[in-house]
Amino acid sequence: MIENYNALIKPGEEELEKRLEKAHRRLFAQQMEIKEKGLPVLVLFEGWGAAGKGTMLGKVIRNLDPRFFTAVSMHAPSEDEKRKPFLCRYFSQIPEAGRFLFMDSGWMSEVVHDVLQDRISTKVYRERISSIRRFERSLTDNGYLVLKFFFQISKKEQKKRLDALLANKDTAWQVDDYDLWENRHYDKCEKVFDVFLEDTSTSTSPWYVVDAQSRKWAQLQIMEPLVAGIDMALKNHALTVPLIQNTFPLLPMPKLVDIDLDKTITLEDYNVELRQLQSRLRELHNQAYRRKIPVIIAYEGWDAAGKGGNIKRLTSALDPRGYEVIPIASPKPHEKSRHFLWRFWTRLPKTGHFAIFDRTWYGRVMVERLEGFCSENDWQCAYNEINEFEKELSDWGAVIIKFWVHIDSDTQLARFTERQNNPEKQWKITDEDWRNREKRDLYENAVNEMIAKTSTTYAPWHILESNDKHYARIRALQIVTGALETAVNERK
Amino acid sequence: MIENYNALIKPGEEELEKRLEKAHRRLFAQQMEIKEKGLPVLVLFEGWGAAGKGTMLGKVIRNLDPRFFTAVSMHAPSEDEKRKPFLCRYFSQIPEAGRFLFMDSGWMSEVVHDVLQDRISTKVYRERISSIRRFERSLTDNGYLVLKFFFQISKKEQKKRLDALLANKDTAWQVDDYDLWENRHYDKCEKVFDVFLEDTSTSTSPWYVVDAQSRKWAQLQIMEPLVAGIDMALKNHALTVPLIQNTFPLLPMPKLVDIDLDKTITLEDYNVELRQLQSRLRELHNQAYRRKIPVIIAYEGWDAAGKGGNIKRLTSALDPRGYEVIPIASPKPHEKSRHFLWRFWTRLPKTGHFAIFDRTWYGRVMVERLEGFCSENDWQCAYNEINEFEKELSDWGAVIIKFWVHIDSDTQLARFTERQNNPEKQWKITDEDWRNREKRDLYENAVNEMIAKTSTTYAPWHILESNDKHYARIRALQIVTGALETAVNERK
Repeated sequence: MIENYNALIKPGEEELEKRLEKAHRRLFAQQMEIKEKGLPVLVLFEGWGAAGKGTMLGKVIRNLDPRFFTAVSMHAPSEDEKRKPFLCRYFSQIPEAGRFLFMDSGWMSEVVHDVLQDRISTKVYRERISSIRRFERSLTDNGYLVLKFFFQISKKEQKKRLDALLANKDTAWQVDDYDLWENRHYDKCEKVFDVFLEDTSTSTSPWYVVDAQSRKWAQLQIMEPLVAGIDMALKNHALTVPLIQNTFPLLPMPKLVDIDLDKTITLEDYNVELRQLQSRLRELHNQAYRRKIPVIIAYEGWDAAGKGGNIKRLTSALDPRGYEVIPIASPKPHEKSRHFLWRFWTRLPKTGHFAIFDRTWYGRVMVERLEGFCSENDWQCAYNEINEFEKELSDWGAVIIKFWVHIDSDTQLARFTERQNNPEKQWKITDEDWRNREKRDLYENAVNEMIAKTSTTYAPWHILESNDKHYARIRALQIVTGALETAVNERK
Repeated sequence: MIENYNALIKPGEEELEKRLEKAHRRLFAQQMEIKEKGLPVLVLFEGWGAAGKGTMLGKVIRNLDPRFFTAVSMHAPSEDEKRKPFLCRYFSQIPEAGRFLFMDSGWMSEVVHDVLQDRISTKVYRERISSIRRFERSLTDNGYLVLKFFFQISKKEQKKRLDALLANKDTAWQVDDYDLWENRHYDKCEKVFDVFLEDTSTSTSPWYVVDAQSRKWAQLQIMEPLVAGIDMALKNHALTVPLIQNTFPLLPMPKLVDIDLDKTITLEDYNVELRQLQSRLRELHNQAYRRKIPVIIAYEGWDAAGKGGNIKRLTSALDPRGYEVIPIASPKPHEKSRHFLWRFWTRLPKTGHFAIFDRTWYGRVMVERLEGFCSENDWQCAYNEINEFEKELSDWGAVIIKFWVHIDSDTQLARFTERQNNPEKQWKITDEDWRNREKRDLYENAVNEMIAKTSTTYAPWHILESNDKHYARIRALQIVTGALETAVNERK
């Protein structure tokens, strides 16, 4: 039986009405505090078919200002959504700071349906559970309030409701085959639900199991934890969270200072190798496409290190329908007001496609760290959150290649000076570049830490020696083709 | 197969030596920082029989100052330990601030053995998992570092090691029947281990699965996460933790101001009822003893409210071999330097016994809160930690009764004045009592919050109207006998 984690005792009719009214008044007042403090709130409704999730949603939001909330009803993933990582469509929906999101059926429904219909193995189920726990924790670590309600009704009650809906021509459409299947297989479903609830109930985002037999009482079971949760989150507002322990397999990496930047290639060799590698890349792009392997290539590096030219040598070998170059600038206001990874979750490629990021989510632990655009706790937590993010991509099947395009300080100065003195290249150099250059030591320190802490086996960093740009381009092509060959062979 | 959550890649022999040496040097230096910052560290070693836990322990601590650590080897619970809550013997062991505890086999071994030997049901297993997750989270929330290592070897390797031990007369004693059973049922054990590791791996205290085939390599897999974990914990030191959401069933409770204190009883009725109730209590004490029901009675209340006299009327009905009155004063240094609930975990009664606490763990949210003996975050977190603590007691089978002995301000003043003027009672009144009295409003506010947040269904508060002490004594006896009758009937 599904255990009632609920924190309430059913009161008498009169007290129920009084407390319901009180909770609604409190929620109304909380709207403004939520907006002022920039608290993002995600409320998930899950439960049995015909348990009344939709109706309840209407009641909960009845006094809320429609500018402050969004309500979404999630359905089975579309064909396009199936070509993204499991969590992608949920992460894309997370609210901005100061807003509510009400989600009617979400990641629980998707996973339990997959289990009930034998679409996923125990191993994949476990991966999903880990993903969900990391997802929710990452949200609450970043100041989100996550409230999850499960609407519980008995087999008999569900049958009664389904029959009543079916008996009426105007409501019969609300009942689908799955609802009927669920009722026939109630005991089996209950077991799967129960295990899922247990597996994903954590202290920071526990499940509230709602006895949904009586609608008024169900409403109180939602309203009271909702306002109590918001009050608590308002108290927690702007608290730092303790760093968590790394559990991802890390590769030992050299420091930038130990990189040999004297590597070069002759122009002749360059031209030969470029042609060969690009031709090989073209074939591999095709094969990856057919095998539906998603490929994510992340570029970071010093200003004037040659990122642009390097990327160009990759893309010129690719079919334009199968890749996208995504330039990353500083976050826009609607991006800043969400989890820092949101703008990357929403830019992921479909399976079979390449996404090449020109600058990346690593801005968090470099420019945002050094310019104070986020708190120390924020960037300290980010290493692990980034490893978790890339783990999701890797579990999804993505090939992940991360380049640090490296040059020494003298080479950078020479290139800056050349840009400055060449009217055609002047647009490429700004005051900011010069300012960043002055902080080279600080940046180098941050880059070393970043590379040491985020070179996982599933998403390693590659340092491209780019004093000789030609050499770096060939190396990049070698690394990309090498990684693709491995992936293509593994998934024949 | 047991998944390797481990964050390391096996290096070559030479690099291994180098990194091992580096980690040992770092650990040596960390000792002093741990002491200075008062970080408590709990390291748990679990794993297959003959996987080398004991030997490894010796290697890890080889450079540590023996004054800074304790190593304990936990065995199957003794008969006395079985009469305490499951977590009790682990909670009792937690280290003081600034010290290491190394535990060889602990809560994992106990639970998986119980599962493998069919001693606990799935339901109890799930309760254990919840208990363990709350236990570990409560430690890390309170600034403890908890590091858990699982020593993994293959069936073949285990067999080889057991055979080698048995072949030598000097080592054969190290192998017990359970080790042999484990090897014969390796696959079954592995499944149970795997599920347990998954169930209890959390972001704040993850499992590190150690490939223990080669001893040197195993050592590195322990030393590096150990020093990294300590470095991280030193960084986290003194961070506040976000409050977590309540998930315990709460009873609605009145505010103190709404309590009717005019209730009285005539001396005649008092004497009759006292005799009857005490006689009934005597019988129930006996029945609870025979049914092995542990009973915990917690007294809090205003100074001069009559706690002492009230307790006396209970105890005078009890067989002295079956109860203990535990007076709680301010914590001693060795108590202050541990989790605030430690001194209560170590004072729990055995099953079948009564423990009557004269002042309790609720000091945290009253005197410690109001006198600033702990941080705001500490007492804010304490409500939930107390509910969790009492949940452990309740799951164990304890009857929990909590009394707030209540008088109004005028009555208190009259009793203070009487004490002051009566040479025989002067010892009962101190300057501190008068100082506390001045803060009555602050205390009343704190008491109201405490009662509202910790009146769970399994450990409810009872407010004793004690302007008339006789009335309060009869009420207390009625409540205690009532609760015992229910418990005794339920467990016939």
